[in-house]
Amino acid sequence: MNYLTKLKKSAEQNNSIVCMGIDPILEKMKIPGKPYKVFVKFFSDILNAIVSENMHPGIVKPNYAFFAMHGFPGLRALKKIINMYHKEKFLVILDAKRGDIGKTSEAYAKEVFDFWKVDAVTVAPYMGTDSVQPFLEFCDKGKGVYILNRTSNPGAVDFQNIVSDGIPLYLRVSHKIVDWYKQGIGAVVGATYPAELEQISSYFAHSKKEVPLLIPGVGSQGGSAAEVVAALTKAGNDLALHRINSSSGIIFAYEKEKTDDYAGAAVKAIKRLNDEINFKSIQNNSA
Amino acid sequence: MNYLTKLKKSAEQNNSIVCMGIDPILEKMKIPGKPYKVFVKFFSDILNAIVSENMHPGIVKPNYAFFAMHGFPGLRALKKIINMYHKEKFLVILDAKRGDIGKTSEAYAKEVFDFWKVDAVTVAPYMGTDSVQPFLEFCDKGKGVYILNRTSNPGAVDFQNIVSDGIPLYLRVSHKIVDWYKQGIGAVVGATYPAELEQISSYFAHSKKEVPLLIPGVGSQGGSAAEVVAALTKAGNDLALHRINSSSGIIFAYEKEKTDDYAGAAVKAIKRLNDEINFKSIQNNSA
Repeated sequence: MNYLTKLKKSAEQNNSIVCMGIDPILEKMKIPGKPYKVFVKFFSDILNAIVSENMHPGIVKPNYAFFAMHGFPGLRALKKIINMYHKEKFLVILDAKRGDIGKTSEAYAKEVFDFWKVDAVTVAPYMGTDSVQPFLEFCDKGKGVYILNRTSNPGAVDFQNIVSDGIPLYLRVSHKIVDWYKQGIGAVVGATYPAELEQISSYFAHSKKEVPLLIPGVGSQGGSAAEVVAALTKAGNDLALHRINSSSGIIFAYEKEKTDDYAGAAVKAIKRLNDEINFKSIQNNSA
Repeated sequence: MNYLTKLKKSAEQNNSIVCMGIDPILEKMKIPGKPYKVFVKFFSDILNAIVSENMHPGIVKPNYAFFAMHGFPGLRALKKIINMYHKEKFLVILDAKRGDIGKTSEAYAKEVFDFWKVDAVTVAPYMGTDSVQPFLEFCDKGKGVYILNRTSNPGAVDFQNIVSDGIPLYLRVSHKIVDWYKQGIGAVVGATYPAELEQISSYFAHSKKEVPLLIPGVGSQGGSAAEVVAALTKAGNDLALHRINSSSGIIFAYEKEKTDDYAGAAVKAIKRLNDEINFKSIQNNSA
């Protein structure tokens, strides 16, 4: 099954296009102990609550950095968490921003798809075609490859908004994504710049290519899910293809709720984000 | 001691500005066994030959991807090899092309400097200022941060050569490197494009900032060390600051030499590259 079909099926089955970001921060986890034990328990508690409350978002995005900073125990926890979520039929995007010269990208592609065994990965575009191609080979095996296109952070403007011949760099990256097209290639576009999200997603819609968007930046980074959905539907998109990511807004929702029940608070936060997105009713209206 | 001083001291002590790239490829290593054992033995044999033949290049650059594709045994070998080379007074650059939004880059910076404990890292610039800043914080602790500026691969032209207001993107990255300047910030500039290498290095020379260059692409990628040195000296650079990297040209030199003595062949390849660069005589002439 190709990655696009996996995304659509998962959205329909779970009535959700939320992606839960897994960015563990030891100090925020209300469990004593060392990283491996704490991370596994925290995310297994959240998983159990998701399953028992039937609030499955369908997809998770572990962030490589937050595991790797703890060395081998962190990376072992990442492996364990990927397995746990796979067993409960989650798709897993490894957010690792890989990318290097061709031969090295081949090695990275093997790392993410053969060792970590995830469904998709994020890839940095600065090094161009041969740095992206080895990842795209895996699209034929049902994998997804999200190219950084317009990122959600303040520094994004430094290079991504440089305009040449009337075209900003981020849009040139979108053009390349269409040039490179294989079913499974996607784009990371931040929720924090809704006008640019609309511009990019309508470009993809007009190019007649189905490019799934991974949209970080709602919640703590300041983007609004309602604005994202408005931008996507205006551009004429099939919402089931795209994912809106929230990390600390879900996993650390207990802080705002002033409760110790982090797993329950996470499930409620997923429900709130689902409600804000209102996927089912939008799909029904557009059908 | 700051990273620039470390580079200069190492160059003077070893009469070398060669960086040995550590890109292990299991099939090319003439040792039976699994990745951990093979990688550690292969690079420990090369290290022993370097020490006993007194042909110390001063710095190595392990490539994260080639270890990570083998999972935990690969990463354990990376840790062991970093330790081995540190013990013999090598500087170690982790070539990992890290970079993400600010908070995530903070985690990556901790990964590379606190867990891997290397002296320097390569960082991708596409996400802008806040993605680079957390790495630069470590310059105050003697660390080096090489920003991808003009890479050595064919795909480099796709985005890096896009021109706006007469200025190609790679040169805008050079400008930002000067804006971001701290002692220890460096730039990756491929040997495969000598004209652009000269342009970038003379820009840094004119900006009166000491920006160490990490120059991959000689040998198997087709760049010439003599051309690199000519470009650098023309731009008025202190050669002791820069490093010319060769990976398979050194570690797999045994293939061209048609010998089984890979360690001996590696040492000879370092010597040949040193001779081609001719560091000592150029430094004496310019002194």
